[in-house]
Amino acid sequence: MTMTNGVARDRRLARRQLTRFNPFDRCLHLAYDESSDYVRCYTNECVEETEKHMEKLNNAATVLKEMNTVRQIRQYRPEPVGQEMVDALLEAARWTGSSRNTQPWHFLVVTDAGLLKDLSQLRTSINWLADAALGIAIVLDGGDATQEAYDEGRVTERVMIAAHLLGLGSGVAWFLGAENEAEAKRLLGIPADRTAHSIIAVGHPITSKDPRPNPVRGGRKPMSEIVSHNRMGNGAE
Amino acid sequence: MTMTNGVARDRRLARRQLTRFNPFDRCLHLAYDESSDYVRCYTNECVEETEKHMEKLNNAATVLKEMNTVRQIRQYRPEPVGQEMVDALLEAARWTGSSRNTQPWHFLVVTDAGLLKDLSQLRTSINWLADAALGIAIVLDGGDATQEAYDEGRVTERVMIAAHLLGLGSGVAWFLGAENEAEAKRLLGIPADRTAHSIIAVGHPITSKDPRPNPVRGGRKPMSEIVSHNRMGNGAE
Repeated sequence: MTMTNGVARDRRLARRQLTRFNPFDRCLHLAYDESSDYVRCYTNECVEETEKHMEKLNNAATVLKEMNTVRQIRQYRPEPVGQEMVDALLEAARWTGSSRNTQPWHFLVVTDAGLLKDLSQLRTSINWLADAALGIAIVLDGGDATQEAYDEGRVTERVMIAAHLLGLGSGVAWFLGAENEAEAKRLLGIPADRTAHSIIAVGHPITSKDPRPNPVRGGRKPMSEIVSHNRMGNGAE
Repeated sequence: MTMTNGVARDRRLARRQLTRFNPFDRCLHLAYDESSDYVRCYTNECVEETEKHMEKLNNAATVLKEMNTVRQIRQYRPEPVGQEMVDALLEAARWTGSSRNTQPWHFLVVTDAGLLKDLSQLRTSINWLADAALGIAIVLDGGDATQEAYDEGRVTERVMIAAHLLGLGSGVAWFLGAENEAEAKRLLGIPADRTAHSIIAVGHPITSKDPRPNPVRGGRKPMSEIVSHNRMGNGAE
């Protein structure tokens, strides 16, 4: 009886561990499996596995923390961005998921300072684009507008995270409005039937401070305001 | 004269290093600065700094490689996702950038298996949603459709990357169509004036194989097909 209680308690503990550690850990997974000997979790091999996983999770925590500090960058140093880094950004873009894997995009790497300057003049709010070492303009196939905007957001986010991890900074500049988009397409040689909303500026960041006269306020809404459980308006369980 | 040539060559070398290493490296940055003594790059302190940066870059390369393996997951183990991990996913979502930092979103954490089952029945292509431990439905404020879909894509990408880094898997399920969206909103108690396109399924992954009768083909287009330089259609320079 005492033995059974002990087993039940250990199984509960193992279950708790399972939800805390990476489930790819074979040992912890076996520990959860009712049909197998959960005590295998406490062999030396398992302890090592668990330690490896804790290390992996710590690494994940570090990267996630880093990811949460990605900010829109609008002030850049003049230094160019190395080709290896550009390649890494494009590879991050290339592997981004999309609706039914259609990959409805084309990436225009703009390093021509004159072109960046011209694009930056489309509207006052994106004048800062002129200071970026390069831009990656996203050209969409011209399919379903909502779906493509969603996929554009996905690929942009990947590139911004990748840039940040490489020690670079990036910021999205929207052309905004049919007239500006048409002019951007003309400047970049993009056919009229394609969609072009935005360009991701990339460069060596000076600061995430918004230099514009009407700066965007930083920070984020508190978790309690933006999260519900199971039904809208339900707080944490 | 020889001295000058040497300086010029070293400066070129420093420049090359600068574009290869992280520019936050104070030493390498000074090396590039015409007005400062570029030889400071070769002090012991600088060598250490450079080594630290190479380590940082190697770490970045590892994480980027990992990011490029994120896939849509549609097959999950039944184990629940620990609260710490859910919190980490929500924190990743919360810190995502959005148009003028409007954060036009609300996140509905759906753990109720009955609700997930009901949502999975909206159309055959998302039946797999029923097997996820939880879903994070994204509710948008109902502003500009293109802008909000773009922001939805951004936040979804962050959550998917975060899930992957935590050893979890995730997959987007679209409700698709006005009727399905209305039914999803009814099920989740979302007011009619909000927008609800999709839910991110999250769980412990079994495989990234698409189990549906009409599976999506994996892989990605080659770089040469999706990248141009400065003007659409220009290959690598």
